[in-house]
Formats: sequence, C-alpha cells, structure tokens
Amino acid sequence: MAEGNKAKGIVKPERPGGFLDFLPADYLARERIFGIIAKVFRSYGYDPIETPMVEFAKSLVGEDETSKNIFYISNKNKNMTQEGQLGLRFDHTVPFARLLAANPYNADTKEGIKLPWRRMVVGPVFRGESPQKGRYRQFYQFDVDIVGVSSMMADAEIVAIIYETLTALGLDDFVIKINNRKLLNGLAELLDVHDRAEVNRDDITKAIFRILDKLDKIGLDQVLFELTQEPDSIFDPAPNLSSEAGEKIKSFINIDGDNYEKLIKAKTVFAGLSIAEDGIKELEQILGFTADLGVPSDKVLVDFGVARGLDYYTGPVMETSLLTAPEFGSVFSGGRYNNLMERFTGQELPAVGASIGVDRLFAALRQLGLLDVSRATITDVLVMRIADNLDSEYLEIAKIIRRCGLNTEVSMLEDRTFKAQFNFALGRGVKYAIIYGENESIKRTIQIKNLSTRKQTEINFSDLEIYFNNI
Amino acid sequence: MAEGNKAKGIVKPERPGGFLDFLPADYLARERIFGIIAKVFRSYGYDPIETPMVEFAKSLVGEDETSKNIFYISNKNKNMTQEGQLGLRFDHTVPFARLLAANPYNADTKEGIKLPWRRMVVGPVFRGESPQKGRYRQFYQFDVDIVGVSSMMADAEIVAIIYETLTALGLDDFVIKINNRKLLNGLAELLDVHDRAEVNRDDITKAIFRILDKLDKIGLDQVLFELTQEPDSIFDPAPNLSSEAGEKIKSFINIDGDNYEKLIKAKTVFAGLSIAEDGIKELEQILGFTADLGVPSDKVLVDFGVARGLDYYTGPVMETSLLTAPEFGSVFSGGRYNNLMERFTGQELPAVGASIGVDRLFAALRQLGLLDVSRATITDVLVMRIADNLDSEYLEIAKIIRRCGLNTEVSMLEDRTFKAQFNFALGRGVKYAIIYGENESIKRTIQIKNLSTRKQTEINFSDLEIYFNNI
Repeated sequence: MAEGNKAKGIVKPERPGGFLDFLPADYLARERIFGIIAKVFRSYGYDPIETPMVEFAKSLVGEDETSKNIFYISNKNKNMTQEGQLGLRFDHTVPFARLLAANPYNADTKEGIKLPWRRMVVGPVFRGESPQKGRYRQFYQFDVDIVGVSSMMADAEIVAIIYETLTALGLDDFVIKINNRKLLNGLAELLDVHDRAEVNRDDITKAIFRILDKLDKIGLDQVLFELTQEPDSIFDPAPNLSSEAGEKIKSFINIDGDNYEKLIKAKTVFAGLSIAEDGIKELEQILGFTADLGVPSDKVLVDFGVARGLDYYTGPVMETSLLTAPEFGSVFSGGRYNNLMERFTGQELPAVGASIGVDRLFAALRQLGLLDVSRATITDVLVMRIADNLDSEYLEIAKIIRRCGLNTEVSMLEDRTFKAQFNFALGRGVKYAIIYGENESIKRTIQIKNLSTRKQTEINFSDLEIYFNNI
Repeated sequence: MAEGNKAKGIVKPERPGGFLDFLPADYLARERIFGIIAKVFRSYGYDPIETPMVEFAKSLVGEDETSKNIFYISNKNKNMTQEGQLGLRFDHTVPFARLLAANPYNADTKEGIKLPWRRMVVGPVFRGESPQKGRYRQFYQFDVDIVGVSSMMADAEIVAIIYETLTALGLDDFVIKINNRKLLNGLAELLDVHDRAEVNRDDITKAIFRILDKLDKIGLDQVLFELTQEPDSIFDPAPNLSSEAGEKIKSFINIDGDNYEKLIKAKTVFAGLSIAEDGIKELEQILGFTADLGVPSDKVLVDFGVARGLDYYTGPVMETSLLTAPEFGSVFSGGRYNNLMERFTGQELPAVGASIGVDRLFAALRQLGLLDVSRATITDVLVMRIADNLDSEYLEIAKIIRRCGLNTEVSMLEDRTFKAQFNFALGRGVKYAIIYGENESIKRTIQIKNLSTRKQTEINFSDLEIYFNNI
C-alpha cells in the first residue's frame, strides 16, 4: 500500500454507482429476513446450493434483452479468450441450468443430481445498467425451484411457499395472482395471429405477453393502444392487432367472479381450443392443491391479466401483489418454464419456480414498518475500562459474560474517562454497560447498567455468571 | 432461451476453471463452519458488514503484486470508462479502507463510523490467475479486524479469537506463532542494509521479509542462499547480504527457550536499538493479555522466523500452524497494519486483524476428519405418495410434520411404485420415510420408517404431531 501511495497519490474513497455497502444495521436486517425466507424454503425440502459469480459468456448470452447488459470480465496479463470470454451471472436460472446439465444422474455410480430436485439459491447477480439510471448493478435474488415434475402439485407447492414466506415475514394484506401462459397462447390463436413476411408467429405472441405484462404499470387503455399499434418496420414484432381483437383481449382480461367462476367463463371463451383447455385444467388443479396445502382461498386470485414478461415461461405464471403497498409491484414471482435446459441439452425438462426481488421486498417491508433496523450492532455488553490497572479483570469479566452467550466487547477507546466510554456505549447501541472501578475492585462487586431502562444493579463479582445466565 | 438456442445452437455446460459450485453437501458443511466462526467473532463484538464485489480499479490497484491479477469488468453498451474502470475486489482489506474513509464519524450528526470499530466480513474475492494453474479465481475470505486501537490489547484479542475459533472448529493440535515486524526492521538495521544506487533500503528490507516468509516452505538453507544471492540487475532489490549477515539472521531465527526466554535473549541481541526494543515490549504485552483472555500458554509461540510476506504489516504478525496437518500452511493469519488508510486519506490509522483462508481451512478440516459432509440434504422427512387418490392427505401429512419443525418434502417422483420412492428416499439421505397407502388410510394410521435404524413404527394419524414433536 505504501508503494501504491507513493506512486499514485491519494485516491478518493468512492463506491461505483449501482453498488451497495451493507453496514451492520442493514446487514443484520437482511440477515434476519434471509433467515426467515430460507427457513420456509427448507421446510419444504429445498436444498441450498451456490454457483460462482462468473460463467462463460457463451452460457449467459442467448436472450436478446439480457445479453446487452452482461458484465464481461477480463485480466491484463492472461490470455483469457483462449479459454473463452467470461461474464458475471445476471440471474440464478442460467447457472442452475448449466449445473443440472453438467451433473446428470448416473444410476450406476449413483452420482449426479437425482430428479426430482428441489433447490434454493440466494446471492448477488449483476446487470450492466448505466450508473446514472439509479438502478442497481449488483443485487440479490432469492430463488426457489423444483425440476423434474410435470404435476401441478409442484406449481401449487411454489404458490404455497410464496404464501408461507410472505406470512412469515409479517405480511398479511397480499394476494398471489395466477394465470397460465397456455391461456395466453390460446388467446393468440383466437386473435388469429399468424406469421408475417419477416416475423414469425411466436415472436408476435411473445410481444403480446410483454405488452400485457405492463398492465399494472400503464393501464388497460395504453395496453390496447400498444397492441393495436402499427409496426415500426417489417422486422418489428409489434402485434398490430385489429381493434376487434383488442376488444376480445379486454373482455378476456375483465372476466369477473370468484376463481372458479372465472375458470368456467374462460372455458366458454376457449371451448374446443385444446391448449387453453389444458391451461384452465392446470389452474383448477393448482387451486385444489393449494387448498390442500393450507393456503387460504382469499390469498390466491386467478387473474387473466398476469402475463410475466419473460419469454421462457411455458405454463402457469404467478406474481404477488402487496395490497397496502402495490407501488412496489410483485415482490415474489415465478412460473413454469419447461425449456430450462434447452440451451445446454436441447431437451425439455419440466421446471417451476419463483424468485424474490430482494431489494424490492426490502423497500416494501421498510415502508410497511416490517423491517427491523433498530440494532446497529451484534454487541450486547460493553465492559468499560475506567481504572488504569484493572485490565486483567476487565478481560476476565468479558470472558465470563461471553460464556453466558452474550456478545461482549471490552472498551478500547483511547479516552478512558467514564463519560467518553459511557457515551460510546450509548452510541454503539449495546444493552448493558459494565462499570468496574477502584471501589468495585475493593468491594469485589460489579455495577451493571441496563442502557434501555437506565437501571443500575450492583452484584457480587462471583455472581456475574449467574446474573447473565438468568436475564 | 428458445431464441438463443435457435440462433446459437447447443452450448456445452462448462464451468470456467478456478470457479467452484457448491452442491448441498458442501454448501451445508461450509454453512456449519461459517456459523461456528461467525459466532466466535460476534461474541467479541465484531459486527458483520458487506461491501460489493465491484470497486473502482483505482481503489484496487497500488500494490505491484496484486494489480496484475485484478479482474476488470466491462459492458458492451455502456461507456463505463466515463465513470472510471471497474474491477472485482481481490481481498476485503481495500474495500474496508474505502468504506472507512468514505464514512468518517461526524460528532454533530452522530453519523459515520465511530472508532474504535470491530468488524467481520466474509465473502468471495477474485484473482485473475491462469485457469491452468489449478488455483481458485473466486474464493472465500473470512476477516476479522479492529481499527482505531494502538494498544496491544487489540492484537492480543485477535490472537484470542484465532485460538477460540480453531478450538470451536474442533482443532486442538495447533499453535499460534507470533513475531513483530519491528524486530525484523531492527534486524535489517543490525545487518547494515542501506540504499543502493537504484534501490532504496525499504524495498530491500521488504525483500528480506518476503524471503523469510518462505522459511516453512523452502527451509533455512535455501532462505540463506536467497538472502545472500547477487541481484539480477541494478534494479533488483535482492538483499545481497554478506554471509556474516546471513549467520546473524540464522542465529536470530534459532533463538530458543520458552516465550519469555526468547524475548530476553532477543533483548540482548537488539540492546539499544529502540525499534526492536519496542517490538519486544509489544510481544511481552501480547503474551500477558492473551493469558488474561484465557489462551493457554502452550498455544502461543514466539517465533522469530514468522515474517508474513505482505508489505503492509507494521507491527505484530501472527500465523497458525496445524501440528497434525502442517502441509496446509497457516489457515488463519494476520497482524497489525497501521497504514490501512494511507491510500485514501494519507493518514495513519491503527488497525489489526486476521484472515481465514477458507479453502485451505476446509481442506485441512476435511483431511483431519473434522468436516461433516455426511448430509447432502436439509430434508428430514419424505412423504411417499403410494396411492393414486390420497394426494390431499399426503399434503396434509407433510404440513403437520413441517409444523413440528422438520423439513418435509412430498415425493414427486413420476414413478409412484413403493420401490422407486423408497430408493429415492434412501438416495436422498432423509431420516424418515412416511408410508401411507390404502390400508393405512382405512385404518387411519401412518407408518413411519426410520431410515438409519430401519425400524418401522405404526401410529394413529391423530398422533402424528405428538410423535414428531417428541423425537
């Protein structure tokens, strides 16, 4: 460091935009939340794994929207392109697929990943956003997925996990909205979407999904406007629907009634269209299983307006809405994506899962008063060092209190006055300050100051362990 | 994903060299170890923080050795050089210094970081090693540091934390070796090291430290050979010591006796040399405080051969040696580095800390049989779905067992035969399999198979919660 300093002078201590520090109060708040989430996920048998931050770029790219904002990594001295360009992961799904494809189960050696497999993962992901946008460039995602199951029991389990997680976090005013991509695909058929000269039907259907996904943000009128808009060019997959088709979408989205009534009405709309009928049957099954799993019926809402923008969903999709904080959007969303492995194996593999947008969830919890940031330290007890010649005893006192399971620090403030150390204890947010000076040393007593009640208790030195074992 | 596949075809599911996946068995083993370490650190009042993976490259570079192997990150679409080149952190120390420099305490607003401050941090760091070398390019470091304290009480606390951590991990055959850079600086004075035309004294002294640091690996003879070797060029800081100076080093390193005897002998060697006398006094203080802190005297060893290669140490240095697994080198090392903030503020700030090389520690624990990788899942109970028409009951059974605090998964194997599901339960490593078929349904009983004892117990359905609450 000395060398660098001489050579380069002082460096401004800046953090790049879009990256966060977690000081203790925020770190501890997040730790508690992550603990609650992990406990729910694990209670259903979802095993934790971790993959590296870095993957081959060829594994990461593929989808147009994301390939643009991948962070690539390089090193001055090594010819890394020999091995292949590397990049930072932008989600947990691609590394999950890579991991599964690289570890197929071998019945002879009994090695590899045996399906069905439930796994959870939490960790930072990276997006090459412009720092000006105020968006995060490193942020946490917390995912829960099950692979190898076609049954809607898996989809229902994901819904149940969403319900239990949000409940465990102290939320109660929320609904989990479910829909099925198969209905939207059916709708595209009803609307008579077909290939255009330079754009295929699939891409137009996906464009419909992406526009529908903005429903909450831009409203139905604007959605209909965008759905019926003319393409910019012959390559633009803009759906360019007729106003009649727009009306069909509107009446489909606006189907009302309770969940089963909605499904009955949808059956009429889609009568004879097998893909949509499949989709309706799947939603019925999910409603049945979630009830068995103990999810209250008012927490699950069939909502034909839910599309989820991501191209890879193939079946049921789900998102959450916090009714007292709708402005944060969906904090926990997911769906079925049977094409997970296509890029690596070319095979279909049934998979369903959901992901928590951790920063969004935190912002919502904070606003709703459900995020406890009151403690800025893990320290419970501070041992003040008032007398000059009692260091051995201060260290011993701390050792005894630690043995009682309390996190205990010995004051190392250079200013050894009572006032300075007491103020330090207050500022640090500890629960107890230990006062032990010449007088106490002679009497073999210890003063314990409770910093929230401000009550001071004098005990015998020999009773210290008993005292802290019993608070 | 479908799009990417069409455009690019199948991608081989490879992981770049030097990066690791953690499947559940390894993840859970690491989680247990990290939990043990964090508990010890926190018991001394070290608060957890987190900084991002990414920093400005100008913050990271400085030391010659590390600037070469920084990973730089870039993005195709954004002009990131406008804001400044970004890189992945290679340790936790530089981000810690950046964080401290950016958050000075303000007595008026009471914001910022009040010193002294104890903090711990764990997370991945990155080095741009060649993948061929078989070295990790992403690996975990677990650091514990205290800033703002000049007293040797802080250094002794770090030694005590090393002792308690290793003990908590189940290790007992180890010693913590301590030395002081001030003695080595004194030694350099005794050896009459002075500036050469193109190399200054400081750089030659550092070269001595780096050669001494290899003592464990290459032995004393080779160390003496390197210390007395001629420089390659006039710019080479090779110490080029006389063979007489080499003998002085040898007799210094070989000073024997117990800790206090060694210090007395060293006093004779360095009589009148104030920097070395300071260093000896500091080691005496550390020995006194570590005894007060309850560290057994046979666990701390004054060892004048300990140098620690890193340039930034300025006082006491410490490393550990696992006596039954010395080949792993030091798994937990550190020292005092009062120049931490120099790059960002130009000021001295007293700091002392230590760092666990997590991968090395894991390898050592694994070899010593202290790493529990026996459980490859967090699932305790698997509910088999044998009958076709009892899904509601299977989901209910799982719900009840979860309520007892056991992680419970419902079998979603497509093959619903008893054999397939039972084998799945065995392979998955769960503790209990729940068997509930037509017969049990009629009798309203449940069969519980303990998979380690192979004992099967039949209980009434209504006793399920009581049963699992009492195991």
